[in-house]
Amino acid sequence: MEYRIERDTIGEIKVPQDKYWGAQTQRSKENFKIGGEKMPIEIIRAFAQLKKAAAISNNKLGKLSDAKTAAISKACDEVLEGKFNDHFPLVVWQTGSGTQSNMNVNEVVARRGNELLKEQDSDEKIHPNDDINMSQSSNDTFPTAMHVAAYEDIYSRLIPALSQLKETLLKKEEAYMNIIKIGRTHLQDATPITLGQEISGWRAMLEKSEKMIKESAEHLLNLAIGGTAVGTGINADPIFGDMVAAQLGEQTGYSFVSSDNKYHALTSHDEIVYVHGALKGLAADLTKIANDVRWLASGPRSGIGEITIPANEPGSSIMPGKVNPTQSEALTMVAVQVFGNDAAIGFAASQGNFELNVYKPVIIYNFLQSLHLLADGMISFDVNCVQGLEPNVDVIEENVNRSLMLVTALNPYIGYEKAAEIAKLAFNEGTTLKEAAIKTGYVSEEQYNEWIVPSKMVNL
Amino acid sequence: MEYRIERDTIGEIKVPQDKYWGAQTQRSKENFKIGGEKMPIEIIRAFAQLKKAAAISNNKLGKLSDAKTAAISKACDEVLEGKFNDHFPLVVWQTGSGTQSNMNVNEVVARRGNELLKEQDSDEKIHPNDDINMSQSSNDTFPTAMHVAAYEDIYSRLIPALSQLKETLLKKEEAYMNIIKIGRTHLQDATPITLGQEISGWRAMLEKSEKMIKESAEHLLNLAIGGTAVGTGINADPIFGDMVAAQLGEQTGYSFVSSDNKYHALTSHDEIVYVHGALKGLAADLTKIANDVRWLASGPRSGIGEITIPANEPGSSIMPGKVNPTQSEALTMVAVQVFGNDAAIGFAASQGNFELNVYKPVIIYNFLQSLHLLADGMISFDVNCVQGLEPNVDVIEENVNRSLMLVTALNPYIGYEKAAEIAKLAFNEGTTLKEAAIKTGYVSEEQYNEWIVPSKMVNL
Amino acid sequence: MEYRIERDTIGEIKVPQDKYWGAQTQRSKENFKIGGEKMPIEIIRAFAQLKKAAAISNNKLGKLSDAKTAAISKACDEVLEGKFNDHFPLVVWQTGSGTQSNMNVNEVVARRGNELLKEQDSDEKIHPNDDINMSQSSNDTFPTAMHVAAYEDIYSRLIPALSQLKETLLKKEEAYMNIIKIGRTHLQDATPITLGQEISGWRAMLEKSEKMIKESAEHLLNLAIGGTAVGTGINADPIFGDMVAAQLGEQTGYSFVSSDNKYHALTSHDEIVYVHGALKGLAADLTKIANDVRWLASGPRSGIGEITIPANEPGSSIMPGKVNPTQSEALTMVAVQVFGNDAAIGFAASQGNFELNVYKPVIIYNFLQSLHLLADGMISFDVNCVQGLEPNVDVIEENVNRSLMLVTALNPYIGYEKAAEIAKLAFNEGTTLKEAAIKTGYVSEEQYNEWIVPSKMVNL
Amino acid sequence: MEYRIERDTIGEIKVPQDKYWGAQTQRSKENFKIGGEKMPIEIIRAFAQLKKAAAISNNKLGKLSDAKTAAISKACDEVLEGKFNDHFPLVVWQTGSGTQSNMNVNEVVARRGNELLKEQDSDEKIHPNDDINMSQSSNDTFPTAMHVAAYEDIYSRLIPALSQLKETLLKKEEAYMNIIKIGRTHLQDATPITLGQEISGWRAMLEKSEKMIKESAEHLLNLAIGGTAVGTGINADPIFGDMVAAQLGEQTGYSFVSSDNKYHALTSHDEIVYVHGALKGLAADLTKIANDVRWLASGPRSGIGEITIPANEPGSSIMPGKVNPTQSEALTMVAVQVFGNDAAIGFAASQGNFELNVYKPVIIYNFLQSLHLLADGMISFDVNCVQGLEPNVDVIEENVNRSLMLVTALNPYIGYEKAAEIAKLAFNEGTTLKEAAIKTGYVSEEQYNEWIVPSKMVNL
Repeated sequence: MEYRIERDTIGEIKVPQDKYWGAQTQRSKENFKIGGEKMPIEIIRAFAQLKKAAAISNNKLGKLSDAKTAAISKACDEVLEGKFNDHFPLVVWQTGSGTQSNMNVNEVVARRGNELLKEQDSDEKIHPNDDINMSQSSNDTFPTAMHVAAYEDIYSRLIPALSQLKETLLKKEEAYMNIIKIGRTHLQDATPITLGQEISGWRAMLEKSEKMIKESAEHLLNLAIGGTAVGTGINADPIFGDMVAAQLGEQTGYSFVSSDNKYHALTSHDEIVYVHGALKGLAADLTKIANDVRWLASGPRSGIGEITIPANEPGSSIMPGKVNPTQSEALTMVAVQVFGNDAAIGFAASQGNFELNVYKPVIIYNFLQSLHLLADGMISFDVNCVQGLEPNVDVIEENVNRSLMLVTALNPYIGYEKAAEIAKLAFNEGTTLKEAAIKTGYVSEEQYNEWIVPSKMVNL
Repeated sequence: MEYRIERDTIGEIKVPQDKYWGAQTQRSKENFKIGGEKMPIEIIRAFAQLKKAAAISNNKLGKLSDAKTAAISKACDEVLEGKFNDHFPLVVWQTGSGTQSNMNVNEVVARRGNELLKEQDSDEKIHPNDDINMSQSSNDTFPTAMHVAAYEDIYSRLIPALSQLKETLLKKEEAYMNIIKIGRTHLQDATPITLGQEISGWRAMLEKSEKMIKESAEHLLNLAIGGTAVGTGINADPIFGDMVAAQLGEQTGYSFVSSDNKYHALTSHDEIVYVHGALKGLAADLTKIANDVRWLASGPRSGIGEITIPANEPGSSIMPGKVNPTQSEALTMVAVQVFGNDAAIGFAASQGNFELNVYKPVIIYNFLQSLHLLADGMISFDVNCVQGLEPNVDVIEENVNRSLMLVTALNPYIGYEKAAEIAKLAFNEGTTLKEAAIKTGYVSEEQYNEWIVPSKMVNL
Repeated sequence: MEYRIERDTIGEIKVPQDKYWGAQTQRSKENFKIGGEKMPIEIIRAFAQLKKAAAISNNKLGKLSDAKTAAISKACDEVLEGKFNDHFPLVVWQTGSGTQSNMNVNEVVARRGNELLKEQDSDEKIHPNDDINMSQSSNDTFPTAMHVAAYEDIYSRLIPALSQLKETLLKKEEAYMNIIKIGRTHLQDATPITLGQEISGWRAMLEKSEKMIKESAEHLLNLAIGGTAVGTGINADPIFGDMVAAQLGEQTGYSFVSSDNKYHALTSHDEIVYVHGALKGLAADLTKIANDVRWLASGPRSGIGEITIPANEPGSSIMPGKVNPTQSEALTMVAVQVFGNDAAIGFAASQGNFELNVYKPVIIYNFLQSLHLLADGMISFDVNCVQGLEPNVDVIEENVNRSLMLVTALNPYIGYEKAAEIAKLAFNEGTTLKEAAIKTGYVSEEQYNEWIVPSKMVNL
Repeated sequence: MEYRIERDTIGEIKVPQDKYWGAQTQRSKENFKIGGEKMPIEIIRAFAQLKKAAAISNNKLGKLSDAKTAAISKACDEVLEGKFNDHFPLVVWQTGSGTQSNMNVNEVVARRGNELLKEQDSDEKIHPNDDINMSQSSNDTFPTAMHVAAYEDIYSRLIPALSQLKETLLKKEEAYMNIIKIGRTHLQDATPITLGQEISGWRAMLEKSEKMIKESAEHLLNLAIGGTAVGTGINADPIFGDMVAAQLGEQTGYSFVSSDNKYHALTSHDEIVYVHGALKGLAADLTKIANDVRWLASGPRSGIGEITIPANEPGSSIMPGKVNPTQSEALTMVAVQVFGNDAAIGFAASQGNFELNVYKPVIIYNFLQSLHLLADGMISFDVNCVQGLEPNVDVIEENVNRSLMLVTALNPYIGYEKAAEIAKLAFNEGTTLKEAAIKTGYVSEEQYNEWIVPSKMVNL
């Protein structure tokens, strides 16, 4: 492989000839050979937006020439187009401020910017620190990139996926609103409910989660930019933070603002913890939904079997013809991962000291993984399972009719204790509820027929 | 001990003569001899509010007599006054719907209500299920009590404690706003900051957490009441849920409403997960604050020693005269507990099946423990530590003056690389920054004196 | 209330006249009004054992008089008998080294010891620090008490409970070894298994957990004692640690030793983390067992219903005659708590600095809570559920006979693909497996009858 | 792209012409577009070992021809050599039994095996299910591969890394054994300790963790193989499990055995939970070590500064010349990830139902990630930080000499209370300890010089 020599304040170092990164990126690559988890590309993209916005703002403040600003902007646009995806080789497990990924972006944009300047015969020279990082520090840019990436991904990936699944559930809810089935509490037969009502509970979970995710995500609009090294904004113009936030808003369409208190913005990640709490709520809800689906579809002959779901693949390598609820399995594994990520994020967020929290890469890595897995998981679950979910009307009907808990409807007429007597009699003697009711003498056949009507018990 | 015989639908059972509880409570006591963690008294109190509101609503609906309603209301008031605290003996580790604690309340209120009726020579008889539990199920009352207890405790205990600590921090922030000190990032000397600015970061953490807690807590105003057994509202009037929520609002002053979707309300605890996510954010912030305090107070001679905190007790059983940052220790242990509780709550919330989640007691136990520990912990930390925190002005001044990172202010004049050269020279030769700066020839003494002014670096 | 004046190195303080504790305990009580979670009595008891052993060892080393030694020993014995349970009022949320609970014990034992000396007209005077805490520090005694308490509780409470449940499962396993039932994987019908085999899986879980718990618990035999303040053993004779460990062994019957490396013993709680990992394994296993039990018992009419479990209490406050798997619910809630505690313990264990970890109380609080809940939970589950578990032979037989997965036995004869064809045909046409098999022509009736024999598929 | 048509029991599907995988792999690729986390290559490699061992065992049992056995063995060897790494495209988020990755291996090995057979003009044809998967199910092979991969990685990656770091620490421990420094407890100055002793605590942490990891890892030697679909071993010879385990032992050098109870082996992952508990203990220890290193190296001028660590890269994008403890930061982020993974694993392990736990891929993904991050993290920390760690002898000496906690050595002579008086006097008047001691009159100068000797306080 061919190399060129790059240098930074530590000294010289060899860098692969065909890569745009510089000395500091190379140093990080060599000093942190840990795992294979790359700094998420969404962070690189957020940095590209940020570096462009910073250049434009510095230009407006008279600190950066028009030529450099144009070159930097174009270089950033190219990063956003994905042209340099192979030039961001660093892993998550690096310096805890993300300095090395900030410098990676600074170096790539500077090198590309200098190429662009050269093409225009400019003799200006862009410096990664003095120009690309002007008025900035890793300490304010990295948390800014975290919020930008998180917010963008919530709106471009998570919410659309959630909405898609919600819409499918809404259709199913409406289609099956009048199919009366047995309700189950504690896994035991309970009073009736309709399949549509049951599904409405799932749909309401998604709606509630959506509301909580959106509400909490608003806090991500607060950006650290402007705080520079320790929150005081040293080397940045006092209005730089506001300018960059506004410029970012223009570029992305989101209403970013510069944080009220930069000391908070550099040291606390309570906002990330909070939003991930809403994601955890969603993961809990999805676990419940996926479990309900696979239990209702259990069987085909010795389970509950009240619904069927699509048979997408052979279920077993040994049992021929077996079909398994694999989408539920994938989705609940995703939820498990979100629970684990939540523990990691909370712990990391608590470990700030003085003017900085140095667990930023692990926080955003876990956060974005949760987002992506939830988004992909919901779409996969929707397309490959829920859309094809169908009721087994025969089984549903049989189950509701033989239930003993229809007896609950007698409470207002004969009281809880006598009603219990009837249910127990039916259970012990293996009879229908009606037979038992009449046998006790508490209820006549006419009364039974009038009072015990499943369709009146479901509040349609 | 003397006993009386009580009965339920299972049969007869002996109950201590002097206790107001009945057969089902006694049965639970005997069948669940697990641990010593009692169902939190806040849940019992929320149930008392709820049972009163339910009785009044049933009365308005013409289902419950005036005499019974009055007796039940008075009995509930007495529970709220704490007169029956010894009559709620059940532990957290019982049925997962909290049925047994609901019945415990039903039984105690019924027995006391019957005493009151008897005092008035009424011949009416209150039944725990048919009257106290009228139009209700454990499945909707327990989650209702969870939300009522959680919301009330947030506003009566947590927010006041948070505000108190925030106020103290605000005073310290203002008092020390002009004390310039060294900033520290990665634990390494960084550019200056004032002590007041540093403390403002802590204050901003509390403000942010307060905002997130209050915002998320609004979701707790949604109550399950009206859903009864499976969410369909069987045996309850369709407007019962709204009536009870309104009545609860009247009794407590909080704007409770009946949930839009009762199937969600019985099976999902995403709202609890979400609010606890905000509590976890607070716990993370408090860990950071408590750690900063103890590190800044470390020493007294071989640590950082930039502040002093009160010496409240002998610190060591072996080292005479030792003083330790014990309030920080207690508060960070509280935070650890909140992290653990958060894991428990998220997991439990995911385990619902069909029409019910049967992990309700463990969820609310952990939630209320977090609330109470955070509230008490913040007050203790405030009173016994933060109020007495004082700067060590001499140490602070010495530390800031010898720092090498003041060099950062030279970036805009000579660029990052030359500035780095100066810092390294000073470090390697053990000189002051000024000596090194002049020695390199990049900066004259006059320039140095003009450019390197800590008070200009802190953005006051 | 009446008070007396006590003093410590901070100054004077009022202490309730009827309490044996002294100034430092009182100070902690006033300075840490946080929560209601008391320092576990098991820790107090372990301290009593330790203080006695330390006194005897100091006496042997010629540092403590016979009279003082006798008085201290007797006072410790009285603590162990429970005579002073009301004199240990401190909460978990105190100094992170547990100094205040160490001093609480020192103070109570000193005061009681002085009473005993006085009764004998001795004019010697026992001092909490100089005598009771002689050759010790909180920093080595508290972790010693943690290990002693944890080890004792594992053997006196957890293992017996685990064994009891295991024995019951073994009986059920043997009793039901020949009841052939449908196996289920992915919740879908699979090849047959016997009920006894299924239960043997539960029994094997307990055996495996028992082995892992016992194996890991051996690490708890290492005690910090002898390390004193920072691990160097300052103010203690070099053989003091070994002597105390040996003496503790004599008192308790357990083979305690003094740790090889005291710096580790004061700063790391990896052993506790490790043992709790085994407890978490047990919690995971118990969750699986409890879930299996409640799913197999689901119904009574619209669930799986292959077993019945005891009806211990009315299951519902609204649905008459309902019976719920409440013991499974309590046990799985216990498991959830263990998961939460595990997160708390791991985090806390990571937070040591230099010569001490100051999260000791929260670590042992969570550890002992897990132990006690698991122990009580298993006994409750055993007595109130598993002992009364019975197979529903009719349901079991019906389920296994109609299963399509018996087809798996045809693989060796006709291959996976043709076997799959048969299973699908039966499913699609709603026929028996035999009918479908013959219809495809791949198998004759004779072959089917010879090859498809459930009892040959279960490896009895 | 060119395709060929493959088929399975679901039907036909297009597969890229240049890939060795078949219909089921392709189906999984299309049905589970979730995240980018690939099934770890270590699992694929373990499967290759297993499929080879299974073929050899089936051959010995007379079920598989010599030609097929040879072809399968060679194909598996080629997988182990990495020749087919691009042919295992599936992600973690698939069916929870790992069936699709089992089939992926079956398909690739079958296709390659058939190529090899063809090269030899054999007219035999290998079938993915009937031959490669003969006597097996995903339900026993996937957990077998989990244990094989985990055990191999522990011994080939984790233990060597741990040993390397431990060796470096041992060298530092010995080199600095006589450098007396201040001890610190609660972050406050305490009695002296040597730097070597302090480091010995770190070394002991690694030794203890190593012991616990190795001890617990022995449980991974138990393999599920032989259990097939539900644990009964249907379609496998009763000795097949033992044969394969022995063969695997021969191939890998590790003492694998077939599990005693296969129902446990398919449904419980308590062994994985347990081993990961030991990994969590290591993560907690590494956090403590990394924190000590960065705090001791804090400064360079306004921190503790008792050691220096290598300056591997520019620390700041804005502060010139700044050096940060980046290796500590990477290592503690790794530890955070391990904590998160631990939560995920424990939860997943609890979710088994009946004859199977369907969270296997997420469990092993998290487990192997922890292993790899810990291994890489320790090596990086060793090479880039600990090896270059040096004491700052001047700072160390200054700190120990001015400490007040040397007073502890007076306890045995004048008692705790008088010693405390001396320490407080020195603190309040800002004098040396000796001056204060003499001023109180409790100690003469001669006594002080005799009793207060740091080198006698450290137990060398």
